[in-house]
Formats: sequence, C-alpha cells, structure tokens
Amino acid sequence: MNFQPITQADLEFLANICGQENLICGSEIHEDFSHDELGDLHRFPEILVLPANAREISEIMKYANQRGMAVTPRGQGTGLVGGSVAMHGGIMISTARMNRILELDQENLTLTVEPGVLLMEIAAYVEAHDLFYPPDPGEKSASIGGNISTNAGGMRAVKYGVTRDYVRALEVVLPDGEITWLGGKIVKNSSGYSLKDLIIGSEGTLGIVTKAVLRLLPRPVKAISLLVPFPCLEKAIETVPLIIQSKAVPTAIEYMERAVIENSEDFLGKKFPDSSADAYLLLTFDGNTREDIEKDYEKVAHICLKNGALDILISDTQERQESIWSARGAFLEAIKASTTEMDECDVVVPRNRVAEFVRFTRQIEKEEGLRIRSFGHAGDGNLHVYLLRDQLERDEFKTRLHKSFVRLYDRARELGGQVSGEHGIGFAKRSFLEEVAGKVQLSLMRQIKHAFDPKGILNPGKVI
Amino acid sequence: MNFQPITQADLEFLANICGQENLICGSEIHEDFSHDELGDLHRFPEILVLPANAREISEIMKYANQRGMAVTPRGQGTGLVGGSVAMHGGIMISTARMNRILELDQENLTLTVEPGVLLMEIAAYVEAHDLFYPPDPGEKSASIGGNISTNAGGMRAVKYGVTRDYVRALEVVLPDGEITWLGGKIVKNSSGYSLKDLIIGSEGTLGIVTKAVLRLLPRPVKAISLLVPFPCLEKAIETVPLIIQSKAVPTAIEYMERAVIENSEDFLGKKFPDSSADAYLLLTFDGNTREDIEKDYEKVAHICLKNGALDILISDTQERQESIWSARGAFLEAIKASTTEMDECDVVVPRNRVAEFVRFTRQIEKEEGLRIRSFGHAGDGNLHVYLLRDQLERDEFKTRLHKSFVRLYDRARELGGQVSGEHGIGFAKRSFLEEVAGKVQLSLMRQIKHAFDPKGILNPGKVI
Repeated sequence: MNFQPITQADLEFLANICGQENLICGSEIHEDFSHDELGDLHRFPEILVLPANAREISEIMKYANQRGMAVTPRGQGTGLVGGSVAMHGGIMISTARMNRILELDQENLTLTVEPGVLLMEIAAYVEAHDLFYPPDPGEKSASIGGNISTNAGGMRAVKYGVTRDYVRALEVVLPDGEITWLGGKIVKNSSGYSLKDLIIGSEGTLGIVTKAVLRLLPRPVKAISLLVPFPCLEKAIETVPLIIQSKAVPTAIEYMERAVIENSEDFLGKKFPDSSADAYLLLTFDGNTREDIEKDYEKVAHICLKNGALDILISDTQERQESIWSARGAFLEAIKASTTEMDECDVVVPRNRVAEFVRFTRQIEKEEGLRIRSFGHAGDGNLHVYLLRDQLERDEFKTRLHKSFVRLYDRARELGGQVSGEHGIGFAKRSFLEEVAGKVQLSLMRQIKHAFDPKGILNPGKVI
Repeated sequence: MNFQPITQADLEFLANICGQENLICGSEIHEDFSHDELGDLHRFPEILVLPANAREISEIMKYANQRGMAVTPRGQGTGLVGGSVAMHGGIMISTARMNRILELDQENLTLTVEPGVLLMEIAAYVEAHDLFYPPDPGEKSASIGGNISTNAGGMRAVKYGVTRDYVRALEVVLPDGEITWLGGKIVKNSSGYSLKDLIIGSEGTLGIVTKAVLRLLPRPVKAISLLVPFPCLEKAIETVPLIIQSKAVPTAIEYMERAVIENSEDFLGKKFPDSSADAYLLLTFDGNTREDIEKDYEKVAHICLKNGALDILISDTQERQESIWSARGAFLEAIKASTTEMDECDVVVPRNRVAEFVRFTRQIEKEEGLRIRSFGHAGDGNLHVYLLRDQLERDEFKTRLHKSFVRLYDRARELGGQVSGEHGIGFAKRSFLEEVAGKVQLSLMRQIKHAFDPKGILNPGKVI
C-alpha cells in the first residue's frame, strides 16, 4: 500500500477545515497516539486532527480520498489489537472533541450520542434518568465509537447481548466523504442489506461513525452479586453450563483465579472480599423484584454447592458489589503491572467448551514455557487469555508467543469458536482471522472493503 | 438479465443430484409455486427441485452458476412482496424437505434446525422443553429459513427483538456453490465483518441458508394479556409512547380497529371478547412471577385509563388469551377475504410517530379513494397497512395504489422510518427502497450483491 505523505499544503487545507488549534503535527503529537493499550506496536500518524462534527470529517475524507492519503480513526485508544494505530502514518482523526450526548428520547427509549462520549459518561447519564445501557465492557473510559467499531460485549452479555443489539442507527462518514444514516429510531428493519450491521464491528475500516442512536432499557431495580469460591478452576467453569441449563438467567458470570485476584489486590492496594480459594465464579442477577432475583440465585447457589463450591458469598449492598466489581475491572491492568510485556487472546468458544479451552491454556503454559493468566466471561464463552513475557528475552518471547497463539486459535476453531469475542482483529490478529474465517469468507470481506473503500485509505492494514 | 433456459440435459443433471422423484417440471408444477401470499404477481419456475441437504444445493448452485441459470430459493411461500416468486423462471429450490430439527443443545441454549422447519414446529418443540424462541410473526406456518431471509419480527419485538437477535450461526450455500458456516454457538463475535448479519434479511439474494443455530431463552413462567378498548384509534395509539416512557416492559403492544375485528369475526365465525369500542390496544406481559408482571400491567392499565381507555379486560387464562391472539393472527386473512384484491405497506416508524402515520393513512384513504385497513405492532412502530381494491377496476386500483404507496413511503421516510419492518423488499417494493435508501446506500448494496453473486443468478430481480 502506497499513501501520499502529508505536505504543507495538506496542513493548510486541514487547518482551514478544523481550525489550526485542532491540528497537531509531527513531533508535537503525544506518544499516547502512537499505540493502543497492548503490545509493542508503535507508529505515529503524520498529523492528528480533532474535528468537531461529521461535516468536517466528510471534508477531510473527500480530500484524503482524492489524494490517496491514509486515515486512521481513533477513539480513546483503549483497544488491544492495534486497531487505532496509524500503521501507515497519514492523518489520524480523533473523535475526542465529538463528545456530546445529543438527545435522550424517552418516548422511543433511545440516546443519541457523538462517538467520543465515554462509556462511563453514558452509564452515569442514563442512570440519572432511571434508564440502562446494558453493554458493560471492563474499560469504562473507552469511547462509544470504539465500542461500536469492535462490537464490544462486556460482562452483561449473558443476559443482555452485545453492543450490536443496542445500536438502532448510525450516522457514518464513508471513505469518499459521503455522510449517510443507517437504520433509525426503529425497532424492526427489513429494508435491504443491513449496512448498519456491517459497520458495527468493522473497526473503522468501512466508515467513521459520527453519531449513534442507542437503544436503552428501563433500569433494573435490584441487582445482587454472588461470589462463589471453588477448590479449582475446572470445577468452577464446569458449573457454568449447568447454570445455563437450569434456565436461571444471570446478568453476568465471570470466572477468576486466585493468582489474578492477588495481582489485583497488589495493584489496587485493597483486599478482595475472599481470596482463600483457588478459583471463583462471580455472578450477578438483576430484576425488578427481590423475589424474582432470589428465585434465580437460590437455584444457582444450589447448583454451585452441588458441584463443589466451597461457599456462597452474597453481596446485596451496592458498596460491597462495587468493591468486587472494581477489583474485577482492574484485572487487565493488574496483570499488565505484574509483568514486563504481554499480549492477549480474546477467543470466544461455546459456553460448554470454556473449561476445555482453559485446560488447554494450562497445557500451552507448560509446553511453550510462557506464563499464562486468564479471566473472563464464562457465561458467554469469551475468554481473555494473557501471555506474559516476564524475564524472557524479547525475541524468545515473540517466538513462544506466536507458537502459542497459533495453537490457541487452532483449538478455538476446533471447538467451534472464533478469533475474537469483543476486542476485534485490528492489526495484530489478522493472520489468525485468515486461518479461522478461511479463503471464501475473507474474499467476501475483501470485496466488501473494496466496495466501501476502493482506494483502501481508511484504517489501512486492519482486519483484512 | 438473460438466463439460460432449462434443457433436457439440465433436467437429467438435476435428477442425478436430487433423485427424479424430487423434481417437478413445467405444467406439473402446482399453481401455489407461481406466487406468494399477496398481490397479483404470478410467474412459474421452469423446474421445481426439492433437495435433501446442503450438498445437493451446493451441486445445483455450482451447475447453475457455471451455466448462468436463474435460481429462486423458496420456503413456505408465505411472503408478501414476491420475494420467493421465480420472476425469471429457471430453477426453484424448495427447502420443504429440509425440515428436521437437528439438535437441542441445552448447555448452550441453542436449537439447530434445517431451513424448512415451520415456525409453529419450533414453538411446539422448544415449549415441550420449557424453552422459548421469542420471534413470533403472525404467520406460524412460515419456514424458519424464510423468517431469517426477511429478518422477521412479529409481536414480541417490543421486549425481545427480532429474528436477527436469535440467530447464532448459519450454514449458507453461496451462489457459486461454496458451503460456509457463519457465526457459531457463541454469544459474542468480533472477528471481521459480520457476514452472518448480511445474510439475515437478504431475502435469499446472497446465499441459501441450509442450517441455522438459533438462540433460545428459558420460557417465561407466566403471561397475561390486557385488551384495552378506546373510543378512537388515535387515543389508543397515542398511549403507546406513554407506556414505553413509563418503563414498563410489555412483551407485545398491538393496535386494532373495530372494522378489522369485525372482519376477523366474520372470517373465523367466532366472536371477539369485546367489539363495542372503535379501537383497541392488546398488550401482553410475561415474566417469572405474578408480582413482577402485575407491577408492570397495573402501571400500564393506569396509564391507559388516564388516557381515555374505556375499560381494561384482563386475560389470565391460557384459553382466553389464545382466543384473542388467534383472532389477532387471522387479521391478514380476514381483511384479504373482505375484498377482491389487496396490497400492503409494511412500514416501520419511530414508536412515537405511529399515531401520526395512521392519521396519514386516513387522509390517503379519503384523498386517493381507496379503502385502507391497518393493524399492527404499535409497540415497535411496525404497521401493516392494507390497501383494498373492492369494486374498483383493476387498472384504476393499480393507479390509485401506486400513488398511495408513493405518498405513504414518503411520509414514512419523513418520520424517520423505513420501507419494511419485517416483510422485506422482494420484487414489489424495490422502487420504494431506492427512494428511501438513496443512491449511496443502494450502490453499496449492489456491490455487495456483486461480491456474493457476480453473475446475478440467485433470486434475480429481488431487493435491488
């Protein structure tokens, strides 16, 4: 791929569009914008622009498209696969200034936002109106634009599904600068191919989301969390399919090991409510009446105890729940802080194959000589598996890492799983997507990319 | 579009693949296969084949693709837009023999089915296992393959969403005969562009669904229906946004007028529980405890009464509920039986615009001189508006119909709506999709079609 380098004339054009004060060039660009949250992928854009609206982005795209300049859209840069790193230099478009909540429509239960609004801002805003935006990824400082671009899932997918399920409409700037609306404030749609669903999860390679209409739910009145210690991880995870089968509907089912909890205690400087057991399930139940929730969690508690759980710790105060879930939210950072470098594997497998997959990560740990930590969404089959460098030489780490990744993704495919549950493919996982999706699907994806972006200028080098 | 006519050699090839007994030719083809459920669109395929599995369909597609023969996939033919009519003759592939329920996976809460399984068969099967497949279109004898191809919605979309939300994975035969699996028994997926979501709602123009893995939910323990008479339709429909705003979560909110109820009484030869009022809302609430449901429906009953409802009729026995819902299920047939010919408009608008749109249908009725009846899903903004010929001359009807359609779809677009909520575009609504989607989106859709089906042999003349 060959892109035009940025010239002085380009800078002047961009300054005209967005204002000089919203342009940052060359060595003025902060190091943060050269990478995302994981790995050693570093590449600076030639210029960072912070447009104010879709019209400005449209102008930039028209210009870049005509001249064949690479454009990388960027939310908060909290991704884990290099999706928002400017691999080919060029223009980086940050949506950080497009951070307004535009409309709460209580009659249609929708929230219209700009892409730069943070997940935690949406949560706080809708909660104040007694409403609920269910997707709940661990990283609350991610932008909603980024969440849409990776079809982020989070903890509550067991009961509520993923980001895709909560996007009613998108305003998108296409690579040639056209501004188009997909979907609407509508509940059903069967009007041609679902371009909206193509944009969701396309990691900024098909268009730039400039507005989103999100579907809201009434806020559940009550939530209760159960922390369930087990003598070992297998026992914990093997209980999950039994819970699903019991027809109880937990909001979330997370699994965690003592080692990860200890990392988190060190990192936060706070004790976890219990860390005596080797492994835990953390479950939440929500609903509108205590009876409704109790019926479910009593059934689940019974199943856990029957399957070897050591105890059932109930958290029904908000304070206690927040302390558990904030520890859970710090796992990624805590593991990161415990090592020199790491990379991750965000596989998703059928829910009844999670135990098998985790067992396989243990085998890889031994056979490839690489410390591996995992935690994740046992209830929806989405695992976050971290491969840690520790004291290994860089080259040796890279070699072992690659071998381990190949084996892990192969196994995921054998189990009927996919490369990524919610973090996406970005730059780092492209070769694994090729393996799992196969030639036929990849060729379709390439042609779709070509239909949207014939010159390949938008987020080049990502996904496919 | 020019397609190769079927020759004797083709018949022999197809007989070799599927068996002579699964081939029906020329004048042997029953008239039913020349049309779907609405309008005057009649066209016979040259040959009707009933393959047994994906492999046979793959062989047929390879052959047809090489030779440039038109292929029309067909479920139960219950569509309303000509989507399964063989507009260019050629081969019709019926999935009627592919009607097995293949697997109930209780650990992952999925049901794997062939495309020819009927909606009512799925409902009965999962109910027997105390499970629940939420999509609930009025036409229970539709096939699941057809439902997926139109992204069917039905009554329960208010609470549970549409078919798209319940398809975990698809096995698809592509136009060139490749068999590919999209998705998996997985809850989350962020692994490249969502080809699965492209196939859903593509009305058999991008591929033929040969297996589907459906997501199931535990069956709600209790359901209660409220039939709420109002003095006029406007009053009834204007109450819906207030219900949504109240944060109660009904499973379904349907609206109906006395005239339609009377049609249905005539058609079924059975009295509706009440037909004294001009208009009704019919609501269902489901849940796992009586308290949970009561809290919601009491709130809603109060809102209805405050907004002019004449009464609240509660149906909490299964028998009574079935009698109401079976009347509701007969509306389409009943209206059809009340006239000589009709066509329909399946628009979807934001929920707080339904009243405005219904008012506009009244205006059209007067101004264009065409009897119009409507009913539908007030809770999700999806209206079924029927334009009736009655004693009009055919040509005159066609003229008035077209003028009315243009005005109705224009208004839907102005209100932020779409051409079709759940019946699709098929053959009949293509020009209206062009209007509403606009050039940019249509061009993307055309290129996507070309990526999947460069020779344009699969369901030609549909959608775009």
